[in-house]
Amino acid sequence: MHELVECAPNFSTSDPVTVEKILDAITSVRGVLLLDHSYDDYYNRLVVTLAGEGRILLQAVLRGAVKAAELIDMRTHKGQHPRLGAVDVVPFVPIADSTIESCSELAKSFGRQFSATCDVPVYLYAESASSPDRRDIDWTREGEYEGLEERISRPDRKPDFGPARAHPTAGATITGARKPMVGFNVNISTHDLAIGKKIARALHEKKGGLVGVRAMAAEIPKMGIVQIGMSIYDYERTPLYRVYELLKLEAQRHNVSIVSSEFNGMAPLGAILDVANYYLRVTNLNDDRIIETAICKRLQNQ
Amino acid sequence: MHELVECAPNFSTSDPVTVEKILDAITSVRGVLLLDHSYDDYYNRLVVTLAGEGRILLQAVLRGAVKAAELIDMRTHKGQHPRLGAVDVVPFVPIADSTIESCSELAKSFGRQFSATCDVPVYLYAESASSPDRRDIDWTREGEYEGLEERISRPDRKPDFGPARAHPTAGATITGARKPMVGFNVNISTHDLAIGKKIARALHEKKGGLVGVRAMAAEIPKMGIVQIGMSIYDYERTPLYRVYELLKLEAQRHNVSIVSSEFNGMAPLGAILDVANYYLRVTNLNDDRIIETAICKRLQNQ
Repeated sequence: MHELVECAPNFSTSDPVTVEKILDAITSVRGVLLLDHSYDDYYNRLVVTLAGEGRILLQAVLRGAVKAAELIDMRTHKGQHPRLGAVDVVPFVPIADSTIESCSELAKSFGRQFSATCDVPVYLYAESASSPDRRDIDWTREGEYEGLEERISRPDRKPDFGPARAHPTAGATITGARKPMVGFNVNISTHDLAIGKKIARALHEKKGGLVGVRAMAAEIPKMGIVQIGMSIYDYERTPLYRVYELLKLEAQRHNVSIVSSEFNGMAPLGAILDVANYYLRVTNLNDDRIIETAICKRLQNQ
Repeated sequence: MHELVECAPNFSTSDPVTVEKILDAITSVRGVLLLDHSYDDYYNRLVVTLAGEGRILLQAVLRGAVKAAELIDMRTHKGQHPRLGAVDVVPFVPIADSTIESCSELAKSFGRQFSATCDVPVYLYAESASSPDRRDIDWTREGEYEGLEERISRPDRKPDFGPARAHPTAGATITGARKPMVGFNVNISTHDLAIGKKIARALHEKKGGLVGVRAMAAEIPKMGIVQIGMSIYDYERTPLYRVYELLKLEAQRHNVSIVSSEFNGMAPLGAILDVANYYLRVTNLNDDRIIETAICKRLQNQ
């Protein structure tokens, strides 16, 4: 068994027929593991979670991307999530024994081959970025699909692969290696969105909060409460318990308490072990001590 | 891939040559996974952790047991851990999709075949017990090897398999299916063993504590502190956070705090997810949401 990598491509569609065809293209590659997929009309976006040995994964993602570029027409695309193209972003994420470096190689191979096949310009971001600005996906995606043609000819926005002009129907694509991200939403005991926004600001990296954390508040009308939705970009540096305890502290300022929490998408085991280590003051817990993962490692090495 | 089962046989030896020969016998079966093993002179005991598909596991454990019965002489055995025979106890434990029922079938097959091969009497315990008394390993092991010959002829102590007389050098063996056990030790900020004993009693099932929990206090001289060593026999019923928080509460009565904790042996993933669910108030965390275990399940089903 070679080292496993995760890939979570985001496509700009929520049309069930298009979704089906993209998934069929991906799973036509033998050995790729489809872990999860979800899409909704509000964002008009499909998020797929895949894993597999590097070359197999690359092949599967390429087939899905080529299919998406063929079927999706960005000229008529509307959605609440910012996007630059049909194949909007293709992050490669290390798991188990794989590294950011090997993921970055995969991202570059993907960008090179996808742009050569479909004539779509490709930007590298996150750990694979070719300039400090490009590390930040918000910078790269500024102006979105509609503003792409005007920006792409500027020297500082020259694509890393492919032509310096937008593909008419597929726009542009962003790819790169990044660390595993944790999506974590916390529901608080208030229906006052203004309080939620204050708490979110207190946590958000760019507003004086924790490094590598993005937070936003939203009303959940059917529950009559406010939810703080967070992305934690490097849980090894900024662990989940720290985010949770700081949120609890900020909520207490407003006499608000935590009602419940949920993970958004999948969670890496390391982030969870860390929570147990903190709250139980454990000194010796790691994935080799977990029966299920110890067995899995040995099965993979057989 | 058939369903996986765990087995944690305990052998009455800490002689490195004997240990090596038992492990060689076990791992001579292709496909069995040796997860862990440890032994020490104080207990004069070897604990092996294995996993595998049921029939493979059964074969491996039988080979190890036959070798142990051949090499270990209980007439000269001394150790601090109670024991009834050379192959003292052979618990079968469900993991992933296997059940207590299938583990009980394996335990009965083991008992039948081991007693037939080596002429060693075998008792069933825990979930496989043939009477309520026998569920409790302490009852079955009462009198230990030295008292076995006198007790074994009593009607209520008739072995479930094999002859109603002790094997001269191998004694008797106990086997059965049980739920995954969690070994958890908590170090507290005192060197006063009397305080540790009060806290251990407050937690121990038989002394007014939590159901399915055994606790004992011991001095750790090199650290200058006291350790509460616990076994949690059904973490789904009595979760780890409840044990930990009750221990903290009882320690506070004596102005003692928790210094650190450690797992003794391996831990099931479910017990850890439960800790995260409690402390972060999470409502949607299970093993399908953990990247590493989701991948493992799909690899096993390929």
